Amino acid sequence: LLFEDLCQLLGKEQVSCNESVLYRHSKDESFHTPVKPNVVVFPRHTKEIVKLVEYANKHRIPLVPFGAGSGLEGQAIPVKKGISISFEQMNQIVELRLEDMIVKVQPGVTRLQLNQYINKHGLYFPIDPGADAMIGGMVATNASGTTAVRYGTMRNQVLDMEVVLANGNIIHTGSLAKKSSSGYHLNGLFVGSEGTLGIFTEITLRLHGIPEHVAVAHCTFESVEQCAKAAQVILLSGIPIIRMELVDALSIKKVNEYGGYDYPEEHSLFLEFTGNKNAVEEDITLVEELMREMNCGHWFTARNSKEREQLWKARHELAYAYRHQTGYHVTGSDVCVPISQLPRVVGYARKIMDEAGLEGGIFGHIGDGNFHTIVVFNPNDPKEVKKANELNDRIAHFAISLGGTCTGEHGVGLGKMKFQEMEHKSALDVMKGIKQLLDPHNILNPGKIFYQ
Amino acid sequence: LLFEDLCQLLGKEQVSCNESVLYRHSKDESFHTPVKPNVVVFPRHTKEIVKLVEYANKHRIPLVPFGAGSGLEGQAIPVKKGISISFEQMNQIVELRLEDMIVKVQPGVTRLQLNQYINKHGLYFPIDPGADAMIGGMVATNASGTTAVRYGTMRNQVLDMEVVLANGNIIHTGSLAKKSSSGYHLNGLFVGSEGTLGIFTEITLRLHGIPEHVAVAHCTFESVEQCAKAAQVILLSGIPIIRMELVDALSIKKVNEYGGYDYPEEHSLFLEFTGNKNAVEEDITLVEELMREMNCGHWFTARNSKEREQLWKARHELAYAYRHQTGYHVTGSDVCVPISQLPRVVGYARKIMDEAGLEGGIFGHIGDGNFHTIVVFNPNDPKEVKKANELNDRIAHFAISLGGTCTGEHGVGLGKMKFQEMEHKSALDVMKGIKQLLDPHNILNPGKIFYQ
Repeated sequence: LLFEDLCQLLGKEQVSCNESVLYRHSKDESFHTPVKPNVVVFPRHTKEIVKLVEYANKHRIPLVPFGAGSGLEGQAIPVKKGISISFEQMNQIVELRLEDMIVKVQPGVTRLQLNQYINKHGLYFPIDPGADAMIGGMVATNASGTTAVRYGTMRNQVLDMEVVLANGNIIHTGSLAKKSSSGYHLNGLFVGSEGTLGIFTEITLRLHGIPEHVAVAHCTFESVEQCAKAAQVILLSGIPIIRMELVDALSIKKVNEYGGYDYPEEHSLFLEFTGNKNAVEEDITLVEELMREMNCGHWFTARNSKEREQLWKARHELAYAYRHQTGYHVTGSDVCVPISQLPRVVGYARKIMDEAGLEGGIFGHIGDGNFHTIVVFNPNDPKEVKKANELNDRIAHFAISLGGTCTGEHGVGLGKMKFQEMEHKSALDVMKGIKQLLDPHNILNPGKIFYQ
Repeated sequence: LLFEDLCQLLGKEQVSCNESVLYRHSKDESFHTPVKPNVVVFPRHTKEIVKLVEYANKHRIPLVPFGAGSGLEGQAIPVKKGISISFEQMNQIVELRLEDMIVKVQPGVTRLQLNQYINKHGLYFPIDPGADAMIGGMVATNASGTTAVRYGTMRNQVLDMEVVLANGNIIHTGSLAKKSSSGYHLNGLFVGSEGTLGIFTEITLRLHGIPEHVAVAHCTFESVEQCAKAAQVILLSGIPIIRMELVDALSIKKVNEYGGYDYPEEHSLFLEFTGNKNAVEEDITLVEELMREMNCGHWFTARNSKEREQLWKARHELAYAYRHQTGYHVTGSDVCVPISQLPRVVGYARKIMDEAGLEGGIFGHIGDGNFHTIVVFNPNDPKEVKKANELNDRIAHFAISLGGTCTGEHGVGLGKMKFQEMEHKSALDVMKGIKQLLDPHNILNPGKIFYQ
């Protein structure tokens, strides 16, 4: 019945109950248990989304947006079954406004697709969560990644969105103006709402000029705490930095084994600077001095684009280095804390991972106070599963107790629901009230963010 | 009764019905008609705000927060009478966290007070709306000003707020982490809410390092459209600029008359660059080349701090130059449009002001697409009043029709309510729903933002 109704609504070729299609839309890249939707739809434009939402709202059927499937917290898993909305066919770049340095895209445009389109105009979209995620998914989780230390998160890039609400109304959450004091800030509210408040159908983003010159450097320290302190020193110096990543010694070792590299197996900072050539050269010289004063063990400046790429490989292949081990699962944390607390939290994480006796690494966007732990465990060993979960819980609790957050960039989804009350306290009632206001029948990605 | 109840609640010396106190809290710096509150209270801490809110909610009495009184859209005018809350006594800097470059303040701290406190640590708070506003008021209107082209608006500075809701609950809208994907973005929602969703009691702000070197330049063009095009060229060049202000020829003339200066009476751009010395010098040389290629009429680089100050005077004294004329009132617009539309809107504004035969100037934050018109009129001449209002309406409508907003930084208050429906369309229902959810008895700054 559902299948036939949807074929009627959207056309037969836009609806699928094919087993392999259902399977593909049952999971993301996280360890969360896959759940197949009842049906997957492939809408092509806003009007079809409106039809879908009106139908689902009337019949109380869950609607779960599905992007590239690259999420890390199960946001796209239809835990209450229902309809999975694939954005595969809503992948058009609607309008590039060069003079305004903004672009309007459909949610199914991917990050690399967007950059390929705009790079030839001297522009780029810097937010880089690693995976080639869809813009819609990146907005839904307020994604960020390695460049947030310079450009902020997705929330800082969104100027306007077209959103279909649960009642079928189409709203715009902002305007094309660079700033506004008009009405409540709906852009901010919808970015990071993980499909629970409305379905995004068009997204207008700020773009940035491609920097004239790039320089990359790498240095090592004896402890992860020292790396965190070095990051602090660079931030306080005011030197504009575009990337500042930590990779701990164990993770470097994993990457060396995985990719056959020979990075020094020490706790490492990867640094990237951009700007005009002279300024960048000055900056990097100054940072080298600062790092040597802090007794860094090793300093390396990439001299050309090949060396730069080589240097970033260690960071990029990190998650794969842990994940590729068959029979094992990985889980991890995504906390973000005030910079002053970073050495403490990183040290704490290292200590409790060692005590637990599980293999695990620490890496992340240290310039934002955001880092990840990754822990490898045997899913068939209940003791290891318990230990891995406990590690995540303890790191999240510690981060929250220091004024931080349980998730810096992956979002809440299924995995961080249990920390919401501790982190937000009575503000959680406000969030739940907004959810209830905008989606009274709880059809929009139910079972995410809040326990109901 | 009200007076006695409040004396009971807060203590006698925290409550006033003195005529001069009522008068002072009846108005701001706008042309909106003053309305005296029934009583003014001077709370000292969050607990007193909770008592006040619970009392007002029970008895359905309007609560109107009052900052420095420097608003330009009547946000602090108690149009429905009730209780005006002065933040005069909530002016403490609660905690400065140097390593995190963040500060927690009470809402009554002023911008200059904050900077005086933090400058000695090498930090500054760059948001500069002109007046020495209170931080609470700046948050309430999402204020910005001359430095938004680099630092964004208040919304970009707020990490967390303690807010008392209409039901007396205390919530936190964020955390101390630099970024977060946890729950809905309440920071963004409460910033710019103009006292209609909750009463701010503590605000945590990002701070920034004082730039090493500053350079200021000034150049002129034959038309305001050319100024707007020149601004576009600079923005597209990617040169980091911290201030980029337009002042039209007529306004320069007014300033010269008012202050006895001798600025060239032409349409002018004022530019400011910051960074390390060499980079700034390179940037300013490049911009001079670009401007000369665009046939600027005049180029001047300030060579020392005295010259820099002198140069900015024209911009800073502008509003006063128009306002000081006794017997006359001023009104104006605050639109913000996509940069590509700026030459058109600025040209349109100049044309209709000339046609209306009213004295008026154009100036503003051209790097953001945000500019102001200021029109002088005789409040006792109904024809002039009508013309002045029509000018504002036409400029706002034109800006909205081009994808812009009716207010870039002053907020909605009383003056921009009439544009909310045109600008936000069905999103206005969402905003009203949120207001109803958080303030069901409409006691928080009633009669602002929305018609009820």
